[in-house]
Formats: sequence, C-alpha cells, structure tokens
Amino acid sequence: MIPRIDHIGIAVVSIAEARGFYETLGLHVEEIEEVPEEKVRVAMIPCGETRIELLEATSPDSPIAKFLAERGPGIHHVCLASSDIDGDDAALRAAGVQPLRPEPTRGMGGSRVQFIHPKFAGGVLVELAEGGDE
Amino acid sequence: MIPRIDHIGIAVVSIAEARGFYETLGLHVEEIEEVPEEKVRVAMIPCGETRIELLEATSPDSPIAKFLAERGPGIHHVCLASSDIDGDDAALRAAGVQPLRPEPTRGMGGSRVQFIHPKFAGGVLVELAEGGDE
Repeated sequence: MIPRIDHIGIAVVSIAEARGFYETLGLHVEEIEEVPEEKVRVAMIPCGETRIELLEATSPDSPIAKFLAERGPGIHHVCLASSDIDGDDAALRAAGVQPLRPEPTRGMGGSRVQFIHPKFAGGVLVELAEGGDE
Repeated sequence: MIPRIDHIGIAVVSIAEARGFYETLGLHVEEIEEVPEEKVRVAMIPCGETRIELLEATSPDSPIAKFLAERGPGIHHVCLASSDIDGDDAALRAAGVQPLRPEPTRGMGGSRVQFIHPKFAGGVLVELAEGGDE
C-alpha cells in the first residue's frame, strides 16, 4: 500500500544552479547529502508530506551523469512510500512486473527499497521505500 | 508559497494499460476526465495529499501525442500547489524566470494556473496552481 509520494528525484547538472528556482518559490534546501556508493550529491527540499530531491553527479561514471548525457536534466525517478514493501513486491511479481532487485534491499537511513523499471510503470523509474529517511 | 505538490502528470500511450501498475500497488483511479481544449484524457489517482495523473492524447495533434512522439512515455509535468500564485509569478519574474503565460490564467475547477518552461526549472515543466480542483 502506498500512503504518499516519498520524493521526486530530479537529475540536475548543478545543485547550486538549480536550487534557486525552488528557493524563489519559498521552498528550502533542508540538507545536502553525499551518497558515495551511488556517486551522487542530493539536495533535499521538503514540500508538504513529500520531498523534491535534486541529484548531482559526483563522478563522470555516476548513474546521474549517464542520465544527463542521454536525456538531459529532468525527473530521474519517483519514490512511492510503501507501508508493506514485501507485500507490494509480491503483488507486483504476481501481476507480471519484475522489480529490478531480487528482493527489497537496504536504503538510506534504515529504509528498505525496491526499484521498478520504467517499462512497467508508464515510462517512469519508480522506487518503493519503506521506513527510514527514504 | 508552495504548501504541497498538487499532482504529477505522466504521459502514457494508454490509460487502460498504464493504470494497472498503480492499481496493483493499491492505488485507485478516482475519476477519468476528458479535457477537450487540451485534447487529453486524464485519469486521476489520489496518493496522500497529492495525485498522480495519467495523461492520454485524444487526438494526434494533442500536446501529449507530440510529447510521446518526441520523448516516449514518462513524466510530462509536475504541478506545485501555490497559496499565492500572483506573488509566486511576480517573485519568479523578479528572479529572471519568464513564466509561459503573461499572467496566471483559469484552469480546471476554478483554479488559476501558470507554467514554467523546463529550462528554468531543472529540465522539468512546472505548473503552479492555486485553488480549484487543480
């Protein structure tokens, strides 16, 4: 079950450049975090019960650098909060959707996450996240 | 000021085909509405305080048909709820952002809306909406 959208991840060339648009609208960057294992720097912008995340590559072989090279800046993924990620994972498999990982794995802040390829979700890379900060 | 994300608009080839992914996760299509002036059919899927909108073209010259031809299915726009769309419009102009319309215009359900070109907003087409159903 999906009680809310957890966050929208937007691939940007530069957080320093992209944050201004949201700040002009009165939103604030709460935190900038580096995630070395994904070679990405993340600016977290709370917005109601959800969050906008600006994603900047920290290396040319970062998945975000590859996304930018292929598609340009824009929305990289949408993360849906899940209240039962094992149940959602099973329901998707039963419906013929093959999530990207064999089972939900550890994400940031003690969360558990799974990913769904865009081909199963209307062209959108979907992350599911249960618990933690994710 | 932006209290929440109002909705995420996803361009899909077929609502009938795309809705199943969200329904498998326990989300529900609340309503399907046709917007003849934009040549689009919209499936509204509430998700917490926001909404996922699946957008299907009703004509080959629909903006959604053009988007699909150029980019394939995926996120078409993000709509931020605005509590003061005139103030936000003015703040953006003062910051050098040129919204697409000379001033906010009437949207669905009595709302007032404005649009920001992706080049000003990290590659994302942003809609601002105050009031109404939008």
